[in-house]
Amino acid sequence: MMSPGSGISLDPWFDNYADRAAGLSASEVRALFAVASRPEVVSLAGGMPFVAALPFDKVRSSVDSVLATQGAAALQYGSGQGLPRLREKIRDVMAEEGIRAGVDDIVVTTGSQQGLDLVAKLFINPGDAIIAESPSYVGAMGVFRSYQARVEHVEMDDHGMIPEALRERIEQLRDAQVPVKFLYLIPNFQNPAGVTLSASRRVEILDIAQDNGILIVEDNPYGLLWFDSPPPQALRSVDDGGVIYLGSFSKTFAPGLRVGWVVAPHGIREKLVLASEAAILSPSSFAQMVLAEYFESHDWKAQIDIFRGVYRERRDAMTNALSSYLPDIAHTNPAGGFYLWLTLPEGLDSKDMLPRAITELVAYTPGTAFFANGQGQRHLRLAFCYPEPDFITEGIRRLARVITEERELVDTFGPASSETPVAANLESPPPEVS
Amino acid sequence: MMSPGSGISLDPWFDNYADRAAGLSASEVRALFAVASRPEVVSLAGGMPFVAALPFDKVRSSVDSVLATQGAAALQYGSGQGLPRLREKIRDVMAEEGIRAGVDDIVVTTGSQQGLDLVAKLFINPGDAIIAESPSYVGAMGVFRSYQARVEHVEMDDHGMIPEALRERIEQLRDAQVPVKFLYLIPNFQNPAGVTLSASRRVEILDIAQDNGILIVEDNPYGLLWFDSPPPQALRSVDDGGVIYLGSFSKTFAPGLRVGWVVAPHGIREKLVLASEAAILSPSSFAQMVLAEYFESHDWKAQIDIFRGVYRERRDAMTNALSSYLPDIAHTNPAGGFYLWLTLPEGLDSKDMLPRAITELVAYTPGTAFFANGQGQRHLRLAFCYPEPDFITEGIRRLARVITEERELVDTFGPASSETPVAANLESPPPEVS
Repeated sequence: MMSPGSGISLDPWFDNYADRAAGLSASEVRALFAVASRPEVVSLAGGMPFVAALPFDKVRSSVDSVLATQGAAALQYGSGQGLPRLREKIRDVMAEEGIRAGVDDIVVTTGSQQGLDLVAKLFINPGDAIIAESPSYVGAMGVFRSYQARVEHVEMDDHGMIPEALRERIEQLRDAQVPVKFLYLIPNFQNPAGVTLSASRRVEILDIAQDNGILIVEDNPYGLLWFDSPPPQALRSVDDGGVIYLGSFSKTFAPGLRVGWVVAPHGIREKLVLASEAAILSPSSFAQMVLAEYFESHDWKAQIDIFRGVYRERRDAMTNALSSYLPDIAHTNPAGGFYLWLTLPEGLDSKDMLPRAITELVAYTPGTAFFANGQGQRHLRLAFCYPEPDFITEGIRRLARVITEERELVDTFGPASSETPVAANLESPPPEVS
Repeated sequence: MMSPGSGISLDPWFDNYADRAAGLSASEVRALFAVASRPEVVSLAGGMPFVAALPFDKVRSSVDSVLATQGAAALQYGSGQGLPRLREKIRDVMAEEGIRAGVDDIVVTTGSQQGLDLVAKLFINPGDAIIAESPSYVGAMGVFRSYQARVEHVEMDDHGMIPEALRERIEQLRDAQVPVKFLYLIPNFQNPAGVTLSASRRVEILDIAQDNGILIVEDNPYGLLWFDSPPPQALRSVDDGGVIYLGSFSKTFAPGLRVGWVVAPHGIREKLVLASEAAILSPSSFAQMVLAEYFESHDWKAQIDIFRGVYRERRDAMTNALSSYLPDIAHTNPAGGFYLWLTLPEGLDSKDMLPRAITELVAYTPGTAFFANGQGQRHLRLAFCYPEPDFITEGIRRLARVITEERELVDTFGPASSETPVAANLESPPPEVS
């Protein structure tokens, strides 16, 4: 974050910003990632979907058809809530996860990130608490912070957020008279931890939320990208009055069109449409029509199956390489999605280690990115979505070398920091450094 | 606006919204506009560009080229600041208006509306003042309200905002200790008034802003759509340290791709990129590449010339019809853009008159939409951008009938309201009802 001193000297408008601008800070590892985008670096950092697996001929025919038959409408402003024809297809996509929603319940957004932004804008007063998993999605916490929320992490383990820990946190916040505006969850193949909330805990957490009058925001970009069997049913499929659901085409189609959606209870949905109109007038007609055409004309379910195969193979490449090169390092075993969460041996710090990793031509995301409270030094996120399997294997080989070297340094000179691991239940305690 | 009573009974989450949600209200005439979209109604209400004038074959060849040669990149996430290749073309477009900016100074947004939203989010604390023209763009005031700003209108006349009135307003606000965060201006072919800020006033207003340390937000979607001669140079072309400039492809190309941009001084620009990443991660790669391809491969200046001809013909149709059918009604004479501002005879109310107008199969936007303070009843905005000239003529003929009938009613029963006209200098006082 920019220090106030440097800001004052460099930016003549520094004193004019709103209070919330203090929550806008560049990622500390941003500069490093610029280096990590060089082709010789195996990046296990970014969450880019492997769009090359899309049927480009079908994408082109969808675009051609839109321009040939509805060009003027595609280039015009549309409705703030989004194209009804696309909302019909969104209903079909959600039905795959057991969600029943009316076309009127859906608001199309500029990626589900805009959905998060609108929900945050609609609910968060400065100082309000948002409860999130520990760790949680960096982009969500960035939005919450930009509206001056405090993010309260609740512990998770291999079965997702721990209900008892949630209950305790709600009580603590109530005692401290901090309003809790919503519970933000990524129940399926969570970003960054790669774990899935169990069926029984879904029921329990819904009950806790209902008992305490707390809204749930269910962010589900990865739900259809399961590898062996579908995850438990969506929270929104059980409770349509207390859950705001965020969906995305970024992972089942592609992120480049920036189309996602929100499903919300009636009163909230009305306000979301007004908030979206204030923010962008209307989502892109062109992008919506291309998606509607593609989902109407092509076997999108078979395409999602192709994506599942692609990502399953990459998950396998990563877990196999971890078994081979880092057999005593604890990590989660994702059954879908894009990410795996790794716990470093005691004394190692994932942020401190990153420059060395990039020198060794492998990149990852340090765990601190996924905590609002500075924790996560012992953790890192590995993304298996984008590189080909061979590159993943090579990337893990390089990472193993980096970790081994860091261990030797720690053995020789002692740990750089004394942080104890957070999210302690997320995996069995890492083995001691040998 | 929803009354708190009805909200409580209908929306169980009513008490959970952030304070700023109170600023999100549906337009009072929204329901009427749904009726007005029926094909038999001549709509002079909406500001839809006439995209049918675009060369669709060239749009298609641009899209084909992007998908054939850069499909995977077009479908992927991009940078938060926007594609450098498109920012190069944006520089060329702005050079047409005398603006010199570096590629690094530009932030690509989801339409210029998102630029407005980001600027508002970055600067506005609840209770801050934004100074705007009187009247001003409804969509801007909606954004400012959504961040709990108070909008302070400053009088304009046929040459734009009156500098002396601006000076006075700034002093009043200083005396009242209300922070002024920026001065929001649409200097060219203003929405809704259709007037252009004169060259000498541009200099004077820049001086006033500089003397008072007030940032200017220059919103310029229509600047290139002049009919006879270009407007005076952009404020940003004179002052690059105190002006945030908002540009848009919606009027020179098409709104359906939702691409606009912001040019801002360095420190502000850095924060805008972070705010945009929080809100949408990145603008659509696909839309940006299609625009870059189109602006690189085709004679976009000739196309803007075609648009000028289209809108000039429609402006002429409207002003000629007004001379024929409503010779004693005062209105502005726009030299470019989309809109004309009309002042009704004393005793008439544009909002009250709208249902009757729609019954007579013509629609317009009541003046109240363009004031934050409830004024504007004696005014209405007429858009000449979308209907063909013959329809515009017919629409004005119908409007004349409605106004004549309303006048007769007022003569018989007296005025429905006693409001005196606002923006009194905007045109010569309307003649008395005969």
